[in-house]
This record gives sequence, structure tokens and C-alpha cells, in this order.
Amino acid sequence: MPKRIPTRPLPALAATLLLAAGASQATAADNDDRALLQQAQKLFKPLPKDMGTRENPVTPARVALGRALFFDPRISVDGTVSCAKCHKPQLYGTDGLAKAIGNHAKVNPRNSPTILNAALQGVVSAHWRGDRKSVEDQATKSLIGPPSFGLPNNEAAVARLKAIPGYQPMFKAAFPNDADPYSVDNWGTAIGAYERTLVTPGPFDAFLRGDTRALSPTAKAGLRDFISVGCASCHNGPGLGGTSYQKFGVHQNYWSATGSKEVDKGRFDVTKDEKDLYVFKVPILRNVAMTPPYFHDGSVATLPAAVRIMAKVQLNKTLSDAQAHNIVAFLDSLTGPLPKNFATVPVLPSAAFRER
Amino acid sequence: MPKRIPTRPLPALAATLLLAAGASQATAADNDDRALLQQAQKLFKPLPKDMGTRENPVTPARVALGRALFFDPRISVDGTVSCAKCHKPQLYGTDGLAKAIGNHAKVNPRNSPTILNAALQGVVSAHWRGDRKSVEDQATKSLIGPPSFGLPNNEAAVARLKAIPGYQPMFKAAFPNDADPYSVDNWGTAIGAYERTLVTPGPFDAFLRGDTRALSPTAKAGLRDFISVGCASCHNGPGLGGTSYQKFGVHQNYWSATGSKEVDKGRFDVTKDEKDLYVFKVPILRNVAMTPPYFHDGSVATLPAAVRIMAKVQLNKTLSDAQAHNIVAFLDSLTGPLPKNFATVPVLPSAAFRER
Repeated sequence: MPKRIPTRPLPALAATLLLAAGASQATAADNDDRALLQQAQKLFKPLPKDMGTRENPVTPARVALGRALFFDPRISVDGTVSCAKCHKPQLYGTDGLAKAIGNHAKVNPRNSPTILNAALQGVVSAHWRGDRKSVEDQATKSLIGPPSFGLPNNEAAVARLKAIPGYQPMFKAAFPNDADPYSVDNWGTAIGAYERTLVTPGPFDAFLRGDTRALSPTAKAGLRDFISVGCASCHNGPGLGGTSYQKFGVHQNYWSATGSKEVDKGRFDVTKDEKDLYVFKVPILRNVAMTPPYFHDGSVATLPAAVRIMAKVQLNKTLSDAQAHNIVAFLDSLTGPLPKNFATVPVLPSAAFRER
Repeated sequence: MPKRIPTRPLPALAATLLLAAGASQATAADNDDRALLQQAQKLFKPLPKDMGTRENPVTPARVALGRALFFDPRISVDGTVSCAKCHKPQLYGTDGLAKAIGNHAKVNPRNSPTILNAALQGVVSAHWRGDRKSVEDQATKSLIGPPSFGLPNNEAAVARLKAIPGYQPMFKAAFPNDADPYSVDNWGTAIGAYERTLVTPGPFDAFLRGDTRALSPTAKAGLRDFISVGCASCHNGPGLGGTSYQKFGVHQNYWSATGSKEVDKGRFDVTKDEKDLYVFKVPILRNVAMTPPYFHDGSVATLPAAVRIMAKVQLNKTLSDAQAHNIVAFLDSLTGPLPKNFATVPVLPSAAFRER
């Protein structure tokens, strides 16, 4: 009897013990994930459905007009610049350049950030130095003067719009209460309305909504590091940034780390206030893995390098290889699919028939 | 009795007579349409499903690589030029400019024609003067030297490609038999394979396949005029052109009609043969309504004007307003919807991780 009994009960017992151990490990991991989720939910927010406001609601007519205008280079002084020149869908709303290039190959002073989720930034502006009030303001101001669209004045811009008759019904539908809907302000408002639809929820949003399996174990480790190292003290909210200004280079000059060829004084050049020296907008990190090169001057080519530099110059921390690897995996989870109305470009009203 | 009988039979008789007249009118119109269809089928052809060849078949791997490369500006010398710069989806595969603008704002010598259906042109070339053998040859030659991509040599081009690691598996999949698939020739071949998918069947193709109601009465009148005036003697085949060279300005100098600021000697500058003076490729007319401005130098802004000029300088005919109107309506029927793989741009492999 003693010989027969063990043949089944012993393995069964072992299995039971293993299962119990597995279950308790799973429970511990689940508890860790839930704690991380709760911590994350305090710091971050899922992306909204759209970024429309009472002042600029994302009405279909306004978005349709804004989308066409966004992709139309014919309005610019040399016929080559549209919003989509620096905010290309194929490069996730950027141009892949260190510094944007406008009309007649004029080099812009700074890197063009992604247009995706850009309207999240509200009054902190769509530019690096806080000199634009909103995406609408950014669009409108880009029309006149160098280096973007390069038009000499509002009249010249409106004349370009009126030369394409297909826009007439679109302007009327988008701004039904305006006697003459053709204006530079309405151009910017319509483009802003379109841009306010460009949200890119991804795995991190699923995580924040409670699905702890939406992030890989590496990405979750990266999220822990992102919080514990201190990145989240500035990169928080739905955009993981875009809501404050900070000095770039708290513990050492930024250019000693980035290798920047020129020193940009940042917000100081706007406010002339000494405490704004080297102060820039904290950029949003949504889709950051898809939008190299990095920083206001595009001086750093890769994301791991950018992450290490930020830890060093802002937080005086030298990341381990594992930390850098994990944080990059977490940042990957901030990539969402391109919005359909951005990946697919609109057919523009033809200028072919204006004398017909 | 004579008073009662007429109340029903007379209207019935009238209705019968009217129906008979209607039927005979319809039959006459149907006969006219069928005669027109038969005439058209001799001159034109519906677009093929794709334009792949035995040398360059449109395999999924080759098309996927070519589509990404088509939209990638990072290969060019200043990072701003991709095929899509001059062949934008939103402008039906053109740039809307009189003359294309390449790297560092260099102005190209001639207008960039639509890339849609361009491979139909075969050996007559993808350029205006017959100096490119195929879409592959055109793409490959655009990489090196001014004015397009502006790279100094093949090695520089390959180095740019290799700097984006995401292209490595795509090149391998597209050219599985090549030991080192990275080459300028393969770059052009892949882009050519993609371009060979860009066909745009429209209402005229439905007509040619037998649906005589696919064209409006005005478009059908325009088709009759297009044939009787003589346009179809050069603009025939599936592309309505693109298969021969002709002197531009048979009955008067073209520049006296177009207002061209410069006189382009056309194919003469390639062959140095006197009989090629002012000779250009006959362009395809597919989607012509969507691709202003017109002619090799983009000197004419509207389609009705271009149609009248062609009739005058090539055929010595002054079109009536009705003829011009009808022909433009017919040309409208050559517009097909944008191919999905052109209207929707691909997400490019990111350069973000190359040092990871």
C-alpha cells in the first residue's frame, strides 16, 4: 500500500503546490500592475475623443475645409508650403528635419513638432517658446511673412484663396454666419478645427482605462522608471507634457549634452525676462518614438539618446541601460495609429475651371 | 355615340403616338450612342488593372517598399524632396506649379506631369522630351544631381537609405535574389513597381466597356467633337496620349498662344535633330481636369484655355463655345477616383531607433 499510494497523490500534490505558487505570483504581479495603474491614473489621462472647444467646435463643415486647407500648398507665396509640408502624415505629423524648411528653402529657427494631439497644449502654445496662443493662432501667423507660407499680407493670402473657386462653398458652409467668410482668421480657425480632431489613442490609453495587459512588462517597468526617475514631474497629463515651460539644462548647459551648434535662448527672446533664459515649452511625448530628431533644434537623432540626455541635464541622473531600454519601451506605448482623416489626404478643389 | 366614344380612345391614341415617337427618339439616341461607342472603342482603350511588366511585376513586397520610398523625403540631399513632393495625392499626382521645385528650392526646367497612369507611356518616357526610358529610369535619374533629390552620387543615396534600418527587411523582401538589395537601381525599380499600380479608371472606362449611360449627353457630344476636330489623332489609346512625340505649334508658334516666357526647344535639345525642334511628348489626358496648370511649362492655367489653344496651334481650328464646353465635359469623364494606396499615405519606417 505505501508503494501504491504515492504514484498519484505526490504529483497531484506537487501540481497543487505549483499552482498555488503560480497563483500567488500572478496575484502579486496583478497587485503591482494595479498599484502602477492607480499611480499612473493620478499623473496621466487618456486622450479625449477630440480637442474641440466652445470657441472652435469640430463641426464637419469646418473640419472638411480645414483639412483641405491643411494640405493645400497653392496658398503659399511660392506654391510649395502647406501645413502638411512640415507636418507630413507619413512622418507622424513632422518633417523628419532638424529644423523646418519653409518657402524658398528658408530654414525655420526651430524643429517642427508633430501636429498630432498638438491642440492639447492649449495656451502654452504650439511653438517652442510660448509665442503662439493656440493651434489657430499658430496657423494664422504662419501665413504671413517668412519663413513658412511667406505671404506679404492678409490681402495677398485671401486673394490666393479666392483664386480657387472650389473653396467658396466650403468657406460658406464652415462659417455660415459670416457675410464674407474669406479671411485669414477663418483660414486659421478652420485648420485649427481640423487639427483638433487629430488625436491618437494608443496602448497607454487602454492601460489608463484599466487594461493592465495593454502594456508589455518592459513598458510597465519603463512606466515605473519614468515616474521614479522624475520624468513625470513635467511630462504628465493627457499629452505627457505640453502644459508648462521649463529651463532646458537644469544641471548642465543643454548644448553640452545635445551638441547643438547654436545656443537658443528660448523664451527669453520672447519675454526678455532673465528667468526665461533657455526656457522652452515641455513638449508632449505622444508618438515621440515616431518623431525624430529631438529637441527644439532637432540636435539629437535617436530616442534612447534623448531620454538619457533629459535624465542627465534635467534631473542629474545617469540612466542604466535597463532603465533607458524600459523607458523607451514605455514611450513606444504612446504611439497610436494615425487618424484616418490624416493618413488619407483630401482631394483639393481644382483650380482648373476658374475661367470656364 | 360619336360624343361618348372619344373620351377614352382619343387620349389613348395620343399616348400611343407619343410613346411611339419617344421610342423612336430613344432608339435614334441609342443608335447614335452605340455608333459613338464603336468609334471610340477603335481609338481608345479602358485602363488595364495595373501596369506591371515582366521586368517589373507589381509584387506586394516591391509595391510596399516602393510606396514607402515614394513618400520619403529623408533620402534627398536637403531632406525635403520625395517623389510625393512633385506628385502629391491631394493634387492628383501633381504639384500645382508651373514648373516643379526640387531640393534647395531649385526650379526644374519643366512642369511635373501627374504620376497617375504615367507608366502607360512606356518607352516614350516619363519626361516631356523623351529623355527617360521608363518610370523606373525617371525615378532613378531623379535621385542624383540637381534639381530633384540632389544627391552627389549613388553611394550617397545608398548611405541615406541604410541610415533608416526599417528599410532593411523591406529591401530584402522586395529583392530576395539580390545579395545586397540596397542600390539606386532597386530604389527606382521599387518605386516604379508602386507607380505601376496607380491606375484610375473612371466614367470613360465604363463607357468603353459598353455602358453608354456612363457619360453625360454633354460629355458624349464632347467625345464626338474630340474625335471630329482631330484631337484623337494624337490623344488616343488607354492614356489618350503618351505614346508619341509631336511638334507643339504646327500652325503657329506655341508661345504666341500660350504666352510662355521662355521658348523651350523640346526634344531638339536631346537629339540635336532639326526635325525635333519644339517637339514634345504628347501627354496623357487621364485626370487632366484635376492637373492644372497645362503644357510643358505650365503656362496655361485653365483647361478650357488649353483646349482652345491645342485646337488652334495644332489643328488650325477655332472652337465654338459649345465645342470647347463639350470637350471639357468629355475630359472630365477621364477623371477617376484616386487609388486607395495613393490617397492614403504609408507610415514610414522611423529613424528613431537606429542607435538603440
